[in-house]
Amino acid sequence: MELKNMENKDISKGVGNKINIGLFGFGTVGGSFYRILDIRKKEIEAMLSADVTIKKIFTRGNRNPSIDNIGNLMVNNADDILNDKSINVIVELMGGIDPAKEYIEKAIKNGKSVITANKALLAEHGEGIFKLCKKHNAHIGFEAAVGGGIPILRSIKNGLAGDSITSVFSIINGTSNYILSKMTNEGGKFDDILKKAQEKGYAEADPSFDINGIDSAHKLVILGRLAFAASISLKDVIIEGIKEVSDIDICFARDLGYKIKLLGILKNDDSKIEIRVHPTLIPSASLLSNVDGVFNAFFLNAKFAGPISLTGYGAGGMATASAVMGDFIEIGGKIINSEKHHDIFLNESSNKVQIKRKKDIISRYYLRFSAMDRPGVLAKISKILGDNSISISSMIQQGRKIDGSVPIVITTHEANEEELLKSIELCDKLDIILAKTMILRIEDNVN
Amino acid sequence: MELKNMENKDISKGVGNKINIGLFGFGTVGGSFYRILDIRKKEIEAMLSADVTIKKIFTRGNRNPSIDNIGNLMVNNADDILNDKSINVIVELMGGIDPAKEYIEKAIKNGKSVITANKALLAEHGEGIFKLCKKHNAHIGFEAAVGGGIPILRSIKNGLAGDSITSVFSIINGTSNYILSKMTNEGGKFDDILKKAQEKGYAEADPSFDINGIDSAHKLVILGRLAFAASISLKDVIIEGIKEVSDIDICFARDLGYKIKLLGILKNDDSKIEIRVHPTLIPSASLLSNVDGVFNAFFLNAKFAGPISLTGYGAGGMATASAVMGDFIEIGGKIINSEKHHDIFLNESSNKVQIKRKKDIISRYYLRFSAMDRPGVLAKISKILGDNSISISSMIQQGRKIDGSVPIVITTHEANEEELLKSIELCDKLDIILAKTMILRIEDNVN
Repeated sequence: MELKNMENKDISKGVGNKINIGLFGFGTVGGSFYRILDIRKKEIEAMLSADVTIKKIFTRGNRNPSIDNIGNLMVNNADDILNDKSINVIVELMGGIDPAKEYIEKAIKNGKSVITANKALLAEHGEGIFKLCKKHNAHIGFEAAVGGGIPILRSIKNGLAGDSITSVFSIINGTSNYILSKMTNEGGKFDDILKKAQEKGYAEADPSFDINGIDSAHKLVILGRLAFAASISLKDVIIEGIKEVSDIDICFARDLGYKIKLLGILKNDDSKIEIRVHPTLIPSASLLSNVDGVFNAFFLNAKFAGPISLTGYGAGGMATASAVMGDFIEIGGKIINSEKHHDIFLNESSNKVQIKRKKDIISRYYLRFSAMDRPGVLAKISKILGDNSISISSMIQQGRKIDGSVPIVITTHEANEEELLKSIELCDKLDIILAKTMILRIEDNVN
Repeated sequence: MELKNMENKDISKGVGNKINIGLFGFGTVGGSFYRILDIRKKEIEAMLSADVTIKKIFTRGNRNPSIDNIGNLMVNNADDILNDKSINVIVELMGGIDPAKEYIEKAIKNGKSVITANKALLAEHGEGIFKLCKKHNAHIGFEAAVGGGIPILRSIKNGLAGDSITSVFSIINGTSNYILSKMTNEGGKFDDILKKAQEKGYAEADPSFDINGIDSAHKLVILGRLAFAASISLKDVIIEGIKEVSDIDICFARDLGYKIKLLGILKNDDSKIEIRVHPTLIPSASLLSNVDGVFNAFFLNAKFAGPISLTGYGAGGMATASAVMGDFIEIGGKIINSEKHHDIFLNESSNKVQIKRKKDIISRYYLRFSAMDRPGVLAKISKILGDNSISISSMIQQGRKIDGSVPIVITTHEANEEELLKSIELCDKLDIILAKTMILRIEDNVN
């Protein structure tokens, strides 16, 4: 963009028409950011009316093998970037909390703006970092931390700023969604598919954060803060991973008209917020259940705008770097125009919200009992459920034995989780129940 | 949001901590905007650290019947708003070009910022209005002009600013989508369903702009300008409506594995831009083909971010007003912080792009011939197609006659539109062809 009224521009900060970037991390995403700037430099510089340069790069070893010829940009010491007064923006794509936290905090204190894709860091220390930005008048962008290339955060914090979000159902971990999609569409057991995914590079060598729900929880915390302008921390999230989901559950779910997805769920009923990550049965006919493989999706409901959905690649170097570049252009424009930040999420006095505790959740449930093949089994289970106010919606009992026991699948009407868990505990003590009962939540309206 | 550093704020413009709105139009959307501000006033004022008031309302008669008790806000003369120096922002929700254009231009000249949902005005006079904004340093927001409550414009102009959009397939007219969805899912003829839609209020008394594709074309022009940072006008758009689509075509499409949707299509192959609105066969298995009823959808491809989709309500008072309010909060923040605009679409020197002409389009085609029930018909048609380099992909000939003729449906491989039209013209001159051949385009990859 051509700025005609340059005389008003504050050049006292030494910004002039130049934006220098310090890049932390040069792996898949860092290398992709470098490449996008290389490909689109002319257009980006025209948009900002400024020269844009990656001046220095710091990485702890992880080095994108597909990019060479970057000249002498590499520095061996992070302080070479952090103390360089000519660098206005740092782009942090290292991931992990240490040392990214230290670098980001120092950059902010040194008057630099920050763009990061670091979901773990923002989930655990975001509120402190936002306060620091406010104090030092630094801009911060983190669209890439949630949903890769999908513009979900700006849709929530800007597009729906005047609205009121009542629920979000999200698929925000590509690895888990890939495994569950494969199990659903092609059959197979969790461990085998995970192994193949690792061989193909769709899952990390250590996939624990992905499959145990922590990665989704990190993203959901960031999403929840923006959606509800609320102070939310990781310990507020109910987190259950997909490790326990068996091929049997996927088959029974299908028979019942459902698919199983690892969902990140936010709900706001005006008094309390629910924030949870767990494998969930959702209707096979829903659009969300057809979001497969490495795709991410956000199906949200807003009080006035109604149901809105966004889908796209939730990971991958170029998709994530595209979102980083979107943030860079927005923040670059603010730097060139010497604007102060005025983002609501930088507000110290975010709404203090009440988080709904696990025992207070109301949901429908899928229960798979592993029972002895003996008369009267169903009567005993259903008596315990009935005595605890758990109302049965449907039941499947098939003849075939699995591991010596007969699976009995029951879905419930809406029930209180505390009462549900109490009754399952009682069931599991029956001598006719041979293994821990599988409990999954059902969401019938995911948009 | 609480702004602590208020001492830096420019209060010389008389803004102070007060934003006064002049509202033009008080029908469905205008009334909804009034209501959302009423419901969310506390939160919106906290976000902006400012008092926010609708100071005056002007309407030409259309008056939302569900809102009373608005006190003495109504003015009889638009100038009462346009010349009121205490009004910083006008929200234009009257629709139509006259007198909205005059009011908006006068407001900008008088130093006010503008928020509008007026797609016709922006499509036809947007570039002039943007220039005027730039000249008078006025902010303009128009998220609500395309896709109702779906944050598509800010996703494109901010989220994907660093990326490069290669294609957009969109459903952007609720009335047409409602009619085609009904014809597809429940059967029935166009005229009957339109009549019922009018009775239910889903279609206007005069639905011509909706069903002949003009409304979609207006929105597509706005979308195209942002997606390609290009100078595009309404006359660049190839526009075909849904009036000619018959229930027979919908049945044949289904047999071939397709549904028919009115799409707004943008494509950019780096040298020329395609911009067209027409009924299109898209695969029944695609997610886009399952966007039914009054929902709108945008399935786009970006060079780096890959496929991204957004869906939601594309119309309706509250959904549209939600988007207007999102714009208001963004622009209100800029006013309070005395920021200059620096939106790329305000740039006078938008890319001059080449628009692909109709005759240069390459597409697959669905052709329905109305032929005499006589031997040799197929040979004659296929000879003409072959002679003109049109390669046949599939063919359906059913025995039954419709209106005295036998339908023969042919789908082609990719063909040049000029050659296709030439060969169909030759076919239609055959004495065995009894009516004008129905031609529809096929898009196999809509995401």
